Amino acid sequence: MSDVNQFNITEAVKDSFKTEPGSRFEQLLHGLIEHLHDYTREMNITHDEWMKVLTFLYDCGKISTPERQEFILLSDVLGFSALVDMLNTRGGATEGSNLGPFYLDDAENMPLGCDIAGDRSGAIVLVHGKVTDILHHPLSGAVIDTWQADASGTYPIQEQEHGQDKYDLRAKLKTDSEGRYYYTTVLPKPYTVPYDGPVGELLRAGNRHAWRAAHLHYIIRHPGMHTVTTEVFFENTEYLGNDAVFGVRKSLIGKVVPASKVDLSSFDLARKPDAVIEYDFVMAPDNNA
Amino acid sequence: MSDVNQFNITEAVKDSFKTEPGSRFEQLLHGLIEHLHDYTREMNITHDEWMKVLTFLYDCGKISTPERQEFILLSDVLGFSALVDMLNTRGGATEGSNLGPFYLDDAENMPLGCDIAGDRSGAIVLVHGKVTDILHHPLSGAVIDTWQADASGTYPIQEQEHGQDKYDLRAKLKTDSEGRYYYTTVLPKPYTVPYDGPVGELLRAGNRHAWRAAHLHYIIRHPGMHTVTTEVFFENTEYLGNDAVFGVRKSLIGKVVPASKVDLSSFDLARKPDAVIEYDFVMAPDNNA
Repeated sequence: MSDVNQFNITEAVKDSFKTEPGSRFEQLLHGLIEHLHDYTREMNITHDEWMKVLTFLYDCGKISTPERQEFILLSDVLGFSALVDMLNTRGGATEGSNLGPFYLDDAENMPLGCDIAGDRSGAIVLVHGKVTDILHHPLSGAVIDTWQADASGTYPIQEQEHGQDKYDLRAKLKTDSEGRYYYTTVLPKPYTVPYDGPVGELLRAGNRHAWRAAHLHYIIRHPGMHTVTTEVFFENTEYLGNDAVFGVRKSLIGKVVPASKVDLSSFDLARKPDAVIEYDFVMAPDNNA
Repeated sequence: MSDVNQFNITEAVKDSFKTEPGSRFEQLLHGLIEHLHDYTREMNITHDEWMKVLTFLYDCGKISTPERQEFILLSDVLGFSALVDMLNTRGGATEGSNLGPFYLDDAENMPLGCDIAGDRSGAIVLVHGKVTDILHHPLSGAVIDTWQADASGTYPIQEQEHGQDKYDLRAKLKTDSEGRYYYTTVLPKPYTVPYDGPVGELLRAGNRHAWRAAHLHYIIRHPGMHTVTTEVFFENTEYLGNDAVFGVRKSLIGKVVPASKVDLSSFDLARKPDAVIEYDFVMAPDNNA
């Protein structure tokens, strides 16, 4: 046998996996082993620290449920989720941002101009814009799938035990022949990610808050185009510079304008808005289509 | 606000933690963030791959119990545990190796020459040697805490529902005035780490077996000396070159000699052995003592 030591163990562990040479699985595994070992050597990790890391992961597992994914939260606060969003944004297209835990894939199809605020209190805002390809050609029939928190920072899906309908504040809309979309809703407020578990302890230990900047969630789909999963934020609101999950990008911030300053004659609206946000989405071709 | 992109996000996440500058916590956190982000960028992780990683961790959490620590197992098969053992071995001292999941800190104190095999079948072996400091001075009164599997590869603690006593095949012995220790036991057999969970799936996906080379576990303690946690393996046995958790080091392999070839007159033994293993432990001063 060859003797394993702190320098050759990395090759030994990589060699122990008899994966298909050059496969993606091998690449991911070898990279993981190299970084894990380099980190351990660079930091000179002690047994106590090693046990703390493993206990932390164990505690994350303990608190996790299908509804409460502590590992996704961990990924979020370490910027891993945001980085994956960034790396997978297609050139020229709208930047990607967090999907978050509250998406439902079967929101109701609603007509352009609809109101999804219902009886919720808060500022009523007209959200509108165009969906185009990267050459700015309008995309007709693109599906805008949106969901959001209300003006107290809560998603109706979180309040089902208080009688709220989890499909509230959600809609699927189709762009018209000019690629336009528009609807009214209530302006959402910031909220905190869950911080009653091990990730919350990590945030506290690192003197970090758990607040997310207020946002609207979107998934934009169009045949032949790469789906865009993103969030739209609002100018001059809290936590834009220190969103707890690094979801904010400059290009994703929409300007909120008083409705009185906007010509609303081109919109067929079910409800009169207090304010207006214009935001255009750009889609890139789907390489795999 | 500054715009976050795939290149400056690493600094942004590091800055988000307001830890004590220069503290160990900051060092560990910053290094983790850097390696996690570098890995993500180098691999160009997709959303599918990201979700697979998080689901894997979630599944590890699901199967974990206080008795079944899947994250420790994951650390073991990735060589993380072994590397921490290596980094924390004191210069000149016996190399460290896996603690494993079956240690109990209250094994019975037994006299030198005792037999801990009880009624278990298999080859009876005399294990003996000296405990010294790194200058080879014998250490008198060093406590040898040992535990092991039986000749079918099972720890009694795993067989409690079949009436086995979890304290079987365990003992604490004290070295004599010459630093000597000796006792008889049954020669253990190889066994597999648990592979019915997500880590087992990883091993199968990577065409790896789950077998550990047969070994005896030891914790050696002496006042003023750095505690040695290690394992002793046996020459010419299976899995020395491919132990599933990378616990084997050349320096930890003992030679098994037929008892007929050894002069046993200097040992006061409760039981006649079939074979003899000689292994000396070396302890380094405890820096923190």
